[in-house]
Amino acid sequence: MPTKTLYKKVTIVGVGMMGGSLGMALKKAGLAKEVTGWGRNEEKLKKAQARGAVDNWSLEREAALDGAELLVFATPGEVTSALSQEWMAGAPPGCLITDLCSVKRDLPAALTSLTGPSRYYASSHPMCGSEKSGVEAARSDLFRGRLCFITPVTSTRKRSLREIQSFWQALEMRVVSLAPIRHDRIVAAVSHLPHLLAAALINQVGDRKLLEFTGTGLADLTRIAASDPLLWLEIIRQNRENVARQLDLLTASLTELRKMVAEEDGRRLRSWLQKARLRRRKLSGS
Amino acid sequence: MPTKTLYKKVTIVGVGMMGGSLGMALKKAGLAKEVTGWGRNEEKLKKAQARGAVDNWSLEREAALDGAELLVFATPGEVTSALSQEWMAGAPPGCLITDLCSVKRDLPAALTSLTGPSRYYASSHPMCGSEKSGVEAARSDLFRGRLCFITPVTSTRKRSLREIQSFWQALEMRVVSLAPIRHDRIVAAVSHLPHLLAAALINQVGDRKLLEFTGTGLADLTRIAASDPLLWLEIIRQNRENVARQLDLLTASLTELRKMVAEEDGRRLRSWLQKARLRRRKLSGS
Repeated sequence: MPTKTLYKKVTIVGVGMMGGSLGMALKKAGLAKEVTGWGRNEEKLKKAQARGAVDNWSLEREAALDGAELLVFATPGEVTSALSQEWMAGAPPGCLITDLCSVKRDLPAALTSLTGPSRYYASSHPMCGSEKSGVEAARSDLFRGRLCFITPVTSTRKRSLREIQSFWQALEMRVVSLAPIRHDRIVAAVSHLPHLLAAALINQVGDRKLLEFTGTGLADLTRIAASDPLLWLEIIRQNRENVARQLDLLTASLTELRKMVAEEDGRRLRSWLQKARLRRRKLSGS
Repeated sequence: MPTKTLYKKVTIVGVGMMGGSLGMALKKAGLAKEVTGWGRNEEKLKKAQARGAVDNWSLEREAALDGAELLVFATPGEVTSALSQEWMAGAPPGCLITDLCSVKRDLPAALTSLTGPSRYYASSHPMCGSEKSGVEAARSDLFRGRLCFITPVTSTRKRSLREIQSFWQALEMRVVSLAPIRHDRIVAAVSHLPHLLAAALINQVGDRKLLEFTGTGLADLTRIAASDPLLWLEIIRQNRENVARQLDLLTASLTELRKMVAEEDGRRLRSWLQKARLRRRKLSGS
């Protein structure tokens, strides 16, 4: 069992669905004495406080950082990049810093270079986003039983890694450590491609004016297509080479499938469907 | 409000997930005094009785049909075709007959030709299948709020149509009447293509040995890939022309998407994602 650290103060930058859920989960698990939220929109911060996602909040960086032992960027990649320099310079000595961004090509290296000798940083990607956004959709059990990637670079310090791993494990996440480049390849296949596919499918059905004829299967398949388009535009564009490669693979596989469908003999299609069933049954958390 | 008919006896041929759910729903809604199950496997029939999906059961056609006012084929297309001649000839005069098959190209015309003057037949397709099979997965609320297609042919009698429509409406289904040819085109887009896509996606992830890295999004998208491969092989093959056409459309749309992903300017991709989001939010029952 990992050691459970009680943080005196955790500062969460951005209290949307992810940041808000993290605040709730920390309070519920007894991992933080005080959770402070920072954002640019007072209404949203008040809502987060009302939901119990943060104990208090501030619109000022210095006040939000004062006494923080853990600093979490729960903001999209571009916002995190833009904020990181000032926030990391202002973090108290000994503070552990992490982000929750979906693409790791540049961010972990850039933020690691900003730590200096007295701060600790390791990049995280808890795989539990949803199509919902905003603190209204936050849930204290969002992380439990889910997968969390941590993506060290060569200069990531051992203490940062150990501490961030214990942190997510204390929230009952399954932690897997991967190099950023491998992480981005994997999420292109298991997350970014599925996202585009859900959108492609609902658009194909919508283009033919068939939305009124859908059943439960299509609803499940296209749920994530309701996600925030701007957030996803950024993710897809940051990881575009890997996403393009996954789209090529899928196009090739659909072409092959087209042949199987047209064949008189169904053996190949049957074994392909059987393989899919066995694999789907192996998936956890479903 | 449609008139609620109380059937003295309903005979369900095949008591798997769909047939079993229908039995449960009929009892719960007070639409049948007696529900009789027929099948080839005594163990499965006993299980259906133990779950309350049927009041009694028989392995004999004549006993199962004796006194039936409604006869439902809850069997796959090929089985339904094979059974239909003897069962429809043996159905009592005045009996309403329906099937629940997923592809309507040939079946409604073939079965209508078997009715004779004293029996009533109309073909149905309740859109509430799931990846689960067997009476263990049956649920009395399977039909509530879902879409049910009925697919008359030119020789379908008005009384058959009226009665089958009232029947599904009494189970709180939304009933849409379509010509078989149009039905098959629509389900290729909203059901059969999504099915193949879920299988393609899980196979693409599995081929790269990435199943252990999946999150909730992929679990949702691939749930129906766990369905019975033999059942789906039959469905896809029966509707192969329409399915092939849908695969072509999707391949073209992925090729277009590939270009958008590679573009420096994200405007097209953004509006495409925005369109998908708006459409997904319109879907009911999700």
